[in-house]
Amino acid sequence: MGRGVFQTHMERTLIANLGPRVGEKVLIAGWMHNFRRLSKFGFLLLRDASGIAQIVVEKDQLDSLAAIQDESVLQVEGLVVAEKNAASGYEIHQPVITIISPVTEAVPFPINKAVFNVNLDTFLDNATFGLRHPDRKATFALSAALMAAFRSHLNENGFTEVTTPKIVASATESGANVFALDYFHRKAFLAQSPQFYKQIMVGVFERVFEVAPVFRAEPHSTARHLNEYVSLDVEFGFIRDHRDVMEVLGGLIRAMLKYLQTHNQRELEQLKVRMPLAPEKFPSIYFPDAQKVILERYGEDCSHEPDLSPQHERWLGEWALQEYQSDYLFVTGYPMAKRPFYTHPNPADPRYANGFDLLFRGIELVTGGQRLHRYEDYVQALQQRGLPLEPFEGYLETFRFGMPPHGGFAIGLERFLMQLLGVSNLRETTLFPRDMDRLTP
Amino acid sequence: MGRGVFQTHMERTLIANLGPRVGEKVLIAGWMHNFRRLSKFGFLLLRDASGIAQIVVEKDQLDSLAAIQDESVLQVEGLVVAEKNAASGYEIHQPVITIISPVTEAVPFPINKAVFNVNLDTFLDNATFGLRHPDRKATFALSAALMAAFRSHLNENGFTEVTTPKIVASATESGANVFALDYFHRKAFLAQSPQFYKQIMVGVFERVFEVAPVFRAEPHSTARHLNEYVSLDVEFGFIRDHRDVMEVLGGLIRAMLKYLQTHNQRELEQLKVRMPLAPEKFPSIYFPDAQKVILERYGEDCSHEPDLSPQHERWLGEWALQEYQSDYLFVTGYPMAKRPFYTHPNPADPRYANGFDLLFRGIELVTGGQRLHRYEDYVQALQQRGLPLEPFEGYLETFRFGMPPHGGFAIGLERFLMQLLGVSNLRETTLFPRDMDRLTP
Repeated sequence: MGRGVFQTHMERTLIANLGPRVGEKVLIAGWMHNFRRLSKFGFLLLRDASGIAQIVVEKDQLDSLAAIQDESVLQVEGLVVAEKNAASGYEIHQPVITIISPVTEAVPFPINKAVFNVNLDTFLDNATFGLRHPDRKATFALSAALMAAFRSHLNENGFTEVTTPKIVASATESGANVFALDYFHRKAFLAQSPQFYKQIMVGVFERVFEVAPVFRAEPHSTARHLNEYVSLDVEFGFIRDHRDVMEVLGGLIRAMLKYLQTHNQRELEQLKVRMPLAPEKFPSIYFPDAQKVILERYGEDCSHEPDLSPQHERWLGEWALQEYQSDYLFVTGYPMAKRPFYTHPNPADPRYANGFDLLFRGIELVTGGQRLHRYEDYVQALQQRGLPLEPFEGYLETFRFGMPPHGGFAIGLERFLMQLLGVSNLRETTLFPRDMDRLTP
Repeated sequence: MGRGVFQTHMERTLIANLGPRVGEKVLIAGWMHNFRRLSKFGFLLLRDASGIAQIVVEKDQLDSLAAIQDESVLQVEGLVVAEKNAASGYEIHQPVITIISPVTEAVPFPINKAVFNVNLDTFLDNATFGLRHPDRKATFALSAALMAAFRSHLNENGFTEVTTPKIVASATESGANVFALDYFHRKAFLAQSPQFYKQIMVGVFERVFEVAPVFRAEPHSTARHLNEYVSLDVEFGFIRDHRDVMEVLGGLIRAMLKYLQTHNQRELEQLKVRMPLAPEKFPSIYFPDAQKVILERYGEDCSHEPDLSPQHERWLGEWALQEYQSDYLFVTGYPMAKRPFYTHPNPADPRYANGFDLLFRGIELVTGGQRLHRYEDYVQALQQRGLPLEPFEGYLETFRFGMPPHGGFAIGLERFLMQLLGVSNLRETTLFPRDMDRLTP
């Protein structure tokens, strides 16, 4: 039983592929997930990227494995035997075990128990280790699948992926809540969103998307905000109004859910995911009507507020589920006062926006809408808000040279996953979260 | 001839799809690419995301179009007629033209001429407009295709996509050349690479990749460096040594080129791309041997230098093309002195690294290799370089809890495209480049 680097004099078999190899000798490799040492033999669980296999360790091997701890990396050659009492249905017998990387200290917390009950801060402090937990692994496999599903659906529908700069000369939407940095003795900022660039790229490709980090210097500490997250951005031209944007978004969300059901049944079952109710057409309610529902159904008069509170969103989510059997609800026509300057107003009532939020199980998942597309409308919108033109000049040039009516939206990847899994904190769906207090690991 | 937003009382047809519609009335929409006004009629070229169509404008329509300039956004209903003298083979007759967004000023430079000859700085200053040039559009369609090809090949080979933080507490590889920012009154940095995080994630998924921006505060101004670029990162475990990494990389590059040939013939032809010679196995040369080739063939003795200069790389590229009919060349075994601390040395001669650069047409495209995987080796490597352990603790924890032999690499997306297209400046393959002097648009 040697110690060394990974040697492959025979081909490695992934644990998920042991089934067809019953009766054969195989080589598997992975992490020591658990080792139950009995007096005459032992059961060693080996975990690789694909699954967990049980290995029957023989008595004369116990001594040489006495000192190593969970998470040691091992290579095991042995015979595949069908064994209905093993979790996977198979066992490895007559193992020859090579220790590739021994672990000699106790792990920070167990990741091999049926119930994983670790305080979130402890988990996050040790995320580099804790992410190896099979449930965390499944969580981030779903995160990867959501990105793949997003791109796949958009590519099939004529969208082109773009990559736009994250270091920018001026704040995207307002001067507040941006991170500043020293850029060769000039002041620069981290992009709050690719908003301006994705609009510019509509002038090139008509339909674009981007998957990239965005940075928000908001000094709040909540379970549903982080200071860096992945934004799934979409923008496209030649629309009638925001309703075309909503239709594309609805189709996209349904396609993403379908992708998970097609490709990720294992993770969905492992995490006991309750798949969302996503009807062919998501219900939609106009902002003032939403306020009426809140008054009539929940007794709170919020008719003079320009926005919805988290509690209002939860109530509306509950209402949509009951009335429309939908976990998704569009709220349209928010007051212009709370929307950014590039928002297109409702031509029939310019106090309200041609925009929307999409609530998912009572939390805002997406913001989107139609944008202004005429240069003179931008000049007017900036003037009305008392904003100077100069910082926006590069962006505004786009509109001097012909832009079609267009719109788009941004989905928060981690929030989508949070609501899909029904977990209560965005930090559980972010590999290495960044908040006011957390900058490591 | 009205002016308004985009109205679709009939379905819009993309210009690329006009062929099967000969003899029918269609609605097309896009930008006025060119308008040749003659006395009795006019030829208007309309450009959409898919192509360019010629429209025969009638005499009585000329007046109402007299004031609008190139890049105006138009909607045109008309009859599709086969016309072999039109570039696409089709024309639109009897047009009804609606001006959606009129342009009333001259464009910064023409983007509708056969030869596009604009000074690079002028182009970049006006990139929000200039990117609409059909050749620029084709360039960035290829950029999107390279990303799609990268992901597609890796997904098919068991790799999982990860998204790791770009705001980090300590510099990735060295203290130099990082952008600093104020993070809620603490000092933080922009990630130079996802190196530490992708290694950590090997402990979770075994095989991972990431497509994300990286930030380098290097104060140099060259045609082949930028301060922000897109890094295509790969890392995976259970390797024998760097040769397994080279094999995966070679397969990936060939798959990416094949993807372009399958999906992007139009852009490759439009840009007259000379597809690279990429043999089944890329040639490889050991660093000291590369120095010998340079001496014997080019007469320069660089045997005491720890690295290759750009001129050395060009010579080696030339040599590989002549000797092996390959546009790609691996150089392995660089001296450890110039490699980062996590580099795995060659066990047979620890002065040299188990790592490589991949040259593409004489320019470094990829750096990669085997990494250390034992905690005690990291401690020793940091001590030898006089670096403190403390800033790396979160990262080093991974190696205390069992890591397999692993390695990986990073491909510069923009550089791949630069060498593929044979352009001389990375700024031509970056949508909105960031360099010491350029922070806008």
